[in-house]
Amino acid sequence: MPPLLPKIASPRDLDGMSATQLEQVASEIRDTLCNLVEARSAHFASNLGVVELCLALHTTFDFLHDRLIWDTGHQIYPHKLITGRYDEFPSIRTKGGLMGYPNPEESDYDLFVTGHAGASVSTAHGLASGDLALRPHENRWSVAVIGDGAFPSGVVYEALNNLNRDGKRLLIVLNDNKMSICPRVGGVADYFDRLRMNPMYTGLKEEVARVLSKVPLLGDPTERMLAQIKEAAKAGLHGGMFFEELGVRYIGPIDGHNIKLLRKYLRMVKAGDGPVLLHVVTEKGHGFRPAAEDPVTFHAPPVFQRDTSDRDRVVSIKKSDGRSYTHVASDAIHAAMAKNDRVTVLTAAMCQGNKLERLRDDYPDRFFDTGICEAHTVAFAAGQAKVGVRPVVDIYSTFLQRSFDHIFQEVALQNLPVTFTLDRGGLSGPDGATHHGVFDMAYLRVFPNMVVMAPGDAGDLSPMLDFAIKHDSPCAIRYPKAAAIEIAGDRAPVELGKAEVLREGPDGAIVCGGALLVDCLAAADKLQSEQGIDLTVVNARFIKPLDTKTILPIIDRSPFVVTVEEAQLAGGFGSAVLEACSDAGVSTAHLRRLGIPDVYVEHGDREELLADLGLDSAGILKTCQELAGARAANLAG
Amino acid sequence: MPPLLPKIASPRDLDGMSATQLEQVASEIRDTLCNLVEARSAHFASNLGVVELCLALHTTFDFLHDRLIWDTGHQIYPHKLITGRYDEFPSIRTKGGLMGYPNPEESDYDLFVTGHAGASVSTAHGLASGDLALRPHENRWSVAVIGDGAFPSGVVYEALNNLNRDGKRLLIVLNDNKMSICPRVGGVADYFDRLRMNPMYTGLKEEVARVLSKVPLLGDPTERMLAQIKEAAKAGLHGGMFFEELGVRYIGPIDGHNIKLLRKYLRMVKAGDGPVLLHVVTEKGHGFRPAAEDPVTFHAPPVFQRDTSDRDRVVSIKKSDGRSYTHVASDAIHAAMAKNDRVTVLTAAMCQGNKLERLRDDYPDRFFDTGICEAHTVAFAAGQAKVGVRPVVDIYSTFLQRSFDHIFQEVALQNLPVTFTLDRGGLSGPDGATHHGVFDMAYLRVFPNMVVMAPGDAGDLSPMLDFAIKHDSPCAIRYPKAAAIEIAGDRAPVELGKAEVLREGPDGAIVCGGALLVDCLAAADKLQSEQGIDLTVVNARFIKPLDTKTILPIIDRSPFVVTVEEAQLAGGFGSAVLEACSDAGVSTAHLRRLGIPDVYVEHGDREELLADLGLDSAGILKTCQELAGARAANLAG
Repeated sequence: MPPLLPKIASPRDLDGMSATQLEQVASEIRDTLCNLVEARSAHFASNLGVVELCLALHTTFDFLHDRLIWDTGHQIYPHKLITGRYDEFPSIRTKGGLMGYPNPEESDYDLFVTGHAGASVSTAHGLASGDLALRPHENRWSVAVIGDGAFPSGVVYEALNNLNRDGKRLLIVLNDNKMSICPRVGGVADYFDRLRMNPMYTGLKEEVARVLSKVPLLGDPTERMLAQIKEAAKAGLHGGMFFEELGVRYIGPIDGHNIKLLRKYLRMVKAGDGPVLLHVVTEKGHGFRPAAEDPVTFHAPPVFQRDTSDRDRVVSIKKSDGRSYTHVASDAIHAAMAKNDRVTVLTAAMCQGNKLERLRDDYPDRFFDTGICEAHTVAFAAGQAKVGVRPVVDIYSTFLQRSFDHIFQEVALQNLPVTFTLDRGGLSGPDGATHHGVFDMAYLRVFPNMVVMAPGDAGDLSPMLDFAIKHDSPCAIRYPKAAAIEIAGDRAPVELGKAEVLREGPDGAIVCGGALLVDCLAAADKLQSEQGIDLTVVNARFIKPLDTKTILPIIDRSPFVVTVEEAQLAGGFGSAVLEACSDAGVSTAHLRRLGIPDVYVEHGDREELLADLGLDSAGILKTCQELAGARAANLAG
Repeated sequence: MPPLLPKIASPRDLDGMSATQLEQVASEIRDTLCNLVEARSAHFASNLGVVELCLALHTTFDFLHDRLIWDTGHQIYPHKLITGRYDEFPSIRTKGGLMGYPNPEESDYDLFVTGHAGASVSTAHGLASGDLALRPHENRWSVAVIGDGAFPSGVVYEALNNLNRDGKRLLIVLNDNKMSICPRVGGVADYFDRLRMNPMYTGLKEEVARVLSKVPLLGDPTERMLAQIKEAAKAGLHGGMFFEELGVRYIGPIDGHNIKLLRKYLRMVKAGDGPVLLHVVTEKGHGFRPAAEDPVTFHAPPVFQRDTSDRDRVVSIKKSDGRSYTHVASDAIHAAMAKNDRVTVLTAAMCQGNKLERLRDDYPDRFFDTGICEAHTVAFAAGQAKVGVRPVVDIYSTFLQRSFDHIFQEVALQNLPVTFTLDRGGLSGPDGATHHGVFDMAYLRVFPNMVVMAPGDAGDLSPMLDFAIKHDSPCAIRYPKAAAIEIAGDRAPVELGKAEVLREGPDGAIVCGGALLVDCLAAADKLQSEQGIDLTVVNARFIKPLDTKTILPIIDRSPFVVTVEEAQLAGGFGSAVLEACSDAGVSTAHLRRLGIPDVYVEHGDREELLADLGLDSAGILKTCQELAGARAANLAG
């Protein structure tokens, strides 16, 4: 059969297709995904799992009229492939190419850039509420597709609690694949497991037929549909009580890989009233055996190769490129747990991303995966710390934003010794703006009692963790998504509020807050070897408290100063340096701050993005040359 | 009978008391609360509601061994009265006196400073987890007392989802008074209403007796208790399915004003295993008729007087002290809603605090009280904004911290026109550290696309709101908990990124970000009239984008500059000024930043606290005199 997918310019091209043709499209989408992931690391297993759901949604609703939000957003690929982005698809996650998440700038079919989990029910509810207010007669539906992994996120429950108003055209599709990157945990997960045990799902086809046949043939088709929905809900044997108690009609579970069945239920929903939750069971990795069998590895796998004769077999998978900061942090926490049995580690569903498998296996009693629940995780850690435990909260910088208020109230205000290890502090690379961890320096340093550290290299990380666990106040350590480079030579020990001077020169100074330090040193070396300009380079280590005793005299005496950080400049490290100088009456007219300007940085290779921002060694060198040149010109003038 | 309460130095003094004596203590606690609130505004109705619960808890558990967290914390007064703070009690909420919330610095019976709602289940769970890990044989219980108003907060659900681990000694007491300052809303509230309909509660005593009598007399008392708990839970007729589905045993509802019954159930719980949720029904304002009849007014009432002959009657209630910024904001939003039917207003259970009653009554279709759900509220507003609504999210500065990540992802990243009105920006006064809104300038200005405004006086507020609603990006307006003072004279219109120069003088400059502007002007006037020193005073209006075109030349040419803000200095307004100067190469050696230093400011009268920080007009004057003097000395030298 000739391929169908390349010709689909919009979901409307699917409209007249037969079930067989739609299944062919599904198959072509899966092939396209496999081809992509053979060439480049990208989100994979979750996309394989929603192919039929995506087709069923787009052929039941018209999402230029209705509204669709994909929660978390990494399962957006099939949606992109059928909404006019097939040709550009191979560019996904590369700089200038398609984003790996929904992006309204790419298509009217994408409403919100998503990336952080759980907000879809709230935003869809807002869309439904706005439509009800402004265009009540247009009967637009708002649909949130949310995974079971995202479902325990607190904001989902807050939304459920509010759906009794303006929820008339709201559908929540619970995409239940039993996973949350790592296998999911907690009471909600157990509950979903029980729901799947009910006859509606286990004896699926017969049961549904039986239920539907029991509904009398009412005259009005809408009423009939309503009655069917009611019966279908009842067939859940009160399995959906959790939702029903909140006033949300529960339907399901149904097989998420049966397009026909999905469309039947979606049409039923559309003919009735919301708020409705449709429980759809999918298999993460469906249709590609290796991914279905190991959805953790194939969540966003490294590049792999398929067997040329058996396309459902992986013959090689590229090993990772060596040690990253993540590995170093994981090993450091492991070592701390070995040394001190009061140390626990907490992750919010990022066991895999944070490389915590070994910690989980070696110290199961002190390993806590709380699910995608950052707020709870931090408050829970505060409770542990209060009674003598030394919890290490290991969360990506960007996701820790969810716990901002709990870092404030439960940890910093109480001055409790919780250690935060913030992975992916700085630019996250191909994931883009939702995943960059660029606000942490600014938002953590506002809180009294907080100690904020940023290792200058991978060698700093382990001593910083040791320091944090011993220290009697909350400490945060933020480090990049980058290879673990270590600076050679003897290093100063990590002490509270002490910076490290790595080289001293009279011609200027670079003060670096974080792991761009290696680039600063490279720039300084080059400046010396090529132009004989001899710089001082400082590894600040502590963003807060800042080592003013070391840093301010250097700023004061240096002909020019550059501060460097892989963080938003507004309120960031350089800003902290300016504050300290101002408080001490040290002039900063000769100081320039390098960091991330007041924009959302796009996705792309981290090195590329840093280069564009002048934050690689070449960019730092160039800034130093400019400043040195300006000074020389001044002196000459 | 001689009074008992004054002699209670610790809960252990209650141990031998009869039921009658405990009821007398309850009565004395209520008298003490009435006496307090006749003299000074304080939290009231919620405290009247938990008197019996507090006594029952402290006589069943020993909270120097067990752990007790009062969620939100404004219901802490009875607890303070029986934990050794009776004599100091009249000092509550005054500077240097007792805090109006739990405070570990006051007593070992207070574990966490609380104030923001909902985190108690997580922290109690953390305490229980830590105790299980470090002292498993000590059988310590952790108890969270949480109101039905706080219960819809997302972090509660995140905690419930995690109680299937380490919840063995965890008790959640749901203090259900049907209120959340304002009458509560949403599906969870409806659910609690249904729970109260069940026979366990409606036919209370008989039913309980019947249930307990059905349990066979097992030999082992623990086993018997367990069986009783099981039966008691079943008696709920699956009413507690919502909790049971998550693996939390549900017991109740029971009468929260019957000490004997409360103690019986608490003992039952203590003899069994957790996690347990005990649903206790209380009356907000119980025992003082005016408060029970109008718990909204008596949540934290203004000073009132009781009838001398009928102590259960209020004869006068002090009118409020005139218009505050809150009134001005409320009126401005009302006017905006009248002009533009796309404008909605959203509050997270702060209808009363934010004076939104008139908006609710006049525009019920465009008024949304989401309950204590700040995260959802912001994401919901983003959805509304996406389809053309102009939502105004009206939340206290400190509570908006809960939505930090949603301000980022759902609003600022999408560049949606949501307006945030942040009440109580700055020092909140007698509530103390959990309620001060001092981090907002720092945390809002980090986000690209955000516009951050701070009115210099009450006259700025309404035009700023008009500007925000018309502007196509997210805007925040933060203003203090203060009387609405207006500066006389012609005022410049509010335009994006435009500051207002209110007086011009050659001898120095004050650049003010926010409503301390009136104090800055007063200081400048005095400096001129008394010393002939003529200052420039700038009303920055926009914290972001900063009016560099106006401000930087003034800084550049002024002999000294003071920036003034009622916000944390770290990353705040003055910091933004330093950044702008640094970017433009303008020297700041002659600039001093006034604001809140790196500490948690205690509770007390706002004016007192500002004076202590040098942020009143006298303090600003003093700083200007110092700087002017230093300059004069320099010039002379």
